[in-house]
Amino acid sequence: MDYSSRYLEDLIERLSHLPTIGRKTAQRLAFHLMRVPQEEALGLARTIQRIREEVGRCEECGNLAETQPCYLCQDERRDRSVLCIVEQPGDVVAVEKSGAFHGQYHVLSGALSPLDGVGPDELGIEALLARIDRERFREVILATNPTAQGEATAHYLHELLADRPLVVTRIARGIPVGADLELADQVTLARALEGRKEIR
Amino acid sequence: MDYSSRYLEDLIERLSHLPTIGRKTAQRLAFHLMRVPQEEALGLARTIQRIREEVGRCEECGNLAETQPCYLCQDERRDRSVLCIVEQPGDVVAVEKSGAFHGQYHVLSGALSPLDGVGPDELGIEALLARIDRERFREVILATNPTAQGEATAHYLHELLADRPLVVTRIARGIPVGADLELADQVTLARALEGRKEIR
Repeated sequence: MDYSSRYLEDLIERLSHLPTIGRKTAQRLAFHLMRVPQEEALGLARTIQRIREEVGRCEECGNLAETQPCYLCQDERRDRSVLCIVEQPGDVVAVEKSGAFHGQYHVLSGALSPLDGVGPDELGIEALLARIDRERFREVILATNPTAQGEATAHYLHELLADRPLVVTRIARGIPVGADLELADQVTLARALEGRKEIR
Repeated sequence: MDYSSRYLEDLIERLSHLPTIGRKTAQRLAFHLMRVPQEEALGLARTIQRIREEVGRCEECGNLAETQPCYLCQDERRDRSVLCIVEQPGDVVAVEKSGAFHGQYHVLSGALSPLDGVGPDELGIEALLARIDRERFREVILATNPTAQGEATAHYLHELLADRPLVVTRIARGIPVGADLELADQVTLARALEGRKEIR
């Protein structure tokens, strides 16, 4: 028995199951939570409880939300003519941080992956199409990940949307800003060449 | 506004205040906590709450405990003739993991640091002396950190215990196992030479 308290041992065990947190960090975090003001530790506990008991999915866009619709869908200042489709809530955060998009979002909560049993039904594609038809977007941006599943999902959505009166675009795949051409993998470099633009 | 949920934003903010956890990791952890089974997330919340509401200090040794005395003090198999004095609960874990000690512990919860207002009273030195006199230890090991405050604390305790019928020892300071002599700082190397032992 390494610990004088079973409750502490239990906390360290649970923390060490979180991603990026090893046993040593879990122990450090647990002792930290014992040292900080009581209200700080209890506040964290309450917040974890609250996101699981009160946060669900926005009925409009599928993103995480405790309101219906979520704050992003409610925001009147956002462009209502462009829809950006992403895989996960974290992708919305990433796009928002880029500052390059001010339209609406749709979160699929995954990508097509038949082997894992994820098909159009699991991603709520029907509701997405109904939304697109209802809100009459001018453009739909397919911002799924440039992975096999993400590309398959983008391809599938593109086919579904092909005969609708809107522009369907795909985010550019190419060399990351600040990276080295020499170190880029061949597929990325091929995509960067295919996606080249005239300098004006 | 980067997030569709204020509760989620609040959780990420709180997680990012924890040591070793930056903003990106905090976000990753928050999304993870949204994805895992509800019982797993709520269990973590409950455990954090419990350590703050039910874990206090063992009246015997000062270590963290939800029982009186703590599990280590209760353990009948431990040697009752040796006392190891450390600064923090985490130090007890480290010593336990070493497997080289099976006696009793005393946790000071700090080290002497007059500038920070930490004196003998804050460390409960009087209670420690009472315990030492009551339990008649054969040996007291001073295992405070080899830092300025830890050394000062060890020195102070040594003076207090000098005329009692027991052996007072200090953990060895020297070159860490697996480390390089060439890279050791001069104070550590000087201590390693002072603390040399005859090979038998």
